[in-house]
Amino acid sequence: MRYELFYWPSIQGRGEFVRLAFEATGTDYVDVARLPQEQGGGVAALMKVMQSPTTHASPFAPPFLRTGELVIAQTANILAFLGPRLGLVGDDEASRLAALQHQLTIADFASEIHDVHHPIGSGLYYEDQKPEARRRAENFLSERLPKYLGYFERLLERNTPSEGRHAVGTSLSYVDLSLFQMLTGLAYAFPVAFGRIEAEIPLLAALRDDVAAHPRIAAYLASERRLPFNQQGLFRHYPELDSG
Amino acid sequence: MRYELFYWPSIQGRGEFVRLAFEATGTDYVDVARLPQEQGGGVAALMKVMQSPTTHASPFAPPFLRTGELVIAQTANILAFLGPRLGLVGDDEASRLAALQHQLTIADFASEIHDVHHPIGSGLYYEDQKPEARRRAENFLSERLPKYLGYFERLLERNTPSEGRHAVGTSLSYVDLSLFQMLTGLAYAFPVAFGRIEAEIPLLAALRDDVAAHPRIAAYLASERRLPFNQQGLFRHYPELDSG
Repeated sequence: MRYELFYWPSIQGRGEFVRLAFEATGTDYVDVARLPQEQGGGVAALMKVMQSPTTHASPFAPPFLRTGELVIAQTANILAFLGPRLGLVGDDEASRLAALQHQLTIADFASEIHDVHHPIGSGLYYEDQKPEARRRAENFLSERLPKYLGYFERLLERNTPSEGRHAVGTSLSYVDLSLFQMLTGLAYAFPVAFGRIEAEIPLLAALRDDVAAHPRIAAYLASERRLPFNQQGLFRHYPELDSG
Repeated sequence: MRYELFYWPSIQGRGEFVRLAFEATGTDYVDVARLPQEQGGGVAALMKVMQSPTTHASPFAPPFLRTGELVIAQTANILAFLGPRLGLVGDDEASRLAALQHQLTIADFASEIHDVHHPIGSGLYYEDQKPEARRRAENFLSERLPKYLGYFERLLERNTPSEGRHAVGTSLSYVDLSLFQMLTGLAYAFPVAFGRIEAEIPLLAALRDDVAAHPRIAAYLASERRLPFNQQGLFRHYPELDSG
């Protein structure tokens, strides 16, 4: 099965959750828009599929996956599709439902993080919504960040009362990979606020470290395939939005 | 199979997407929190399940569904679970993937609509974020509303070049029901702005009318089970946020 991922070539963004699933399992995939344009890559290749009137279920936005006859959009939908195929979720229905549920809660969390730097409109520059961003950041860091992290910490606590905890079941799932990404991104975006809360989420921190030490993920993180965080992605570091 | 829906008893909110799936199919369900407390209902019943340490995958927020041994949260996850069981999505994988994809885009759309009246924080009152809400409303009505509605209109246009169009395949799916709900809610929240754009989305408007005329949905809408829109839900009518 050939997997083609279509996502913006210069950011981790929401595409990174899918990249991590491929990388953790050593699955061959093409990150299409990162290929040179003369090899059929670039943003042009991405726009071409999005705008094709023959695409079965045309995506509203990247990321999307093309495999066989299918074009699949929405990050959580892509992961729910790939999970069983890549061995990143259990075979039973309860595990699959739980994994998708958690991934959707992570998607909500990610959207709230995005809106900290874009509270008024995603099409406007951050510079055009700075006072509002500052107010939203205060609310996010004091209310939402502890709520989401506390929720996922309790999830790990309840799941497997043993070493090497996972979000779903007893082995690595796409939810674990996504939680790794969330914690890593939060530490980049809000080093002060995240540094303060990190001691209160020991199980999440341990899961993040376990994922980072996974041989394939460690190799990926050290490679050029892993794009650095930057000021165009989901997680952005604006010191004025971090709490002092 | 016994279906118990847990959602806030006084609003349509995100729970309404699930209620519509049950109602359209004549499926027996219990809207637990709307039962009197002495019959095991009320918000207390909802909180009890959410806070139970034995719940397999404890919900982050309502709505959630309890059926058999399962507790399933996240609206789109619930609908992806119910879809095949209630005959509200095709049997093939492509249809199921497309339906979940579209439902997730609807969820993104719904979150953006919520954040029009809550751009700074969901835990704050609207009254505490009115100037920001006004700015966000302008951006939403000029940029995001036409983008989302145009996207779904094109989806219907491409799908079945015939009478009685549907979002997925050739029969009623949970996505059609959700699109009905979105259009109905938008007309309540933004009568001026929606009234202006409605003529540009004839296929969506026709689909909305078809769903409203569906005998079981028509009976539901006329019943006391259908809660009225109000100022506590996802869709709220603040005239100052509608465009003049």
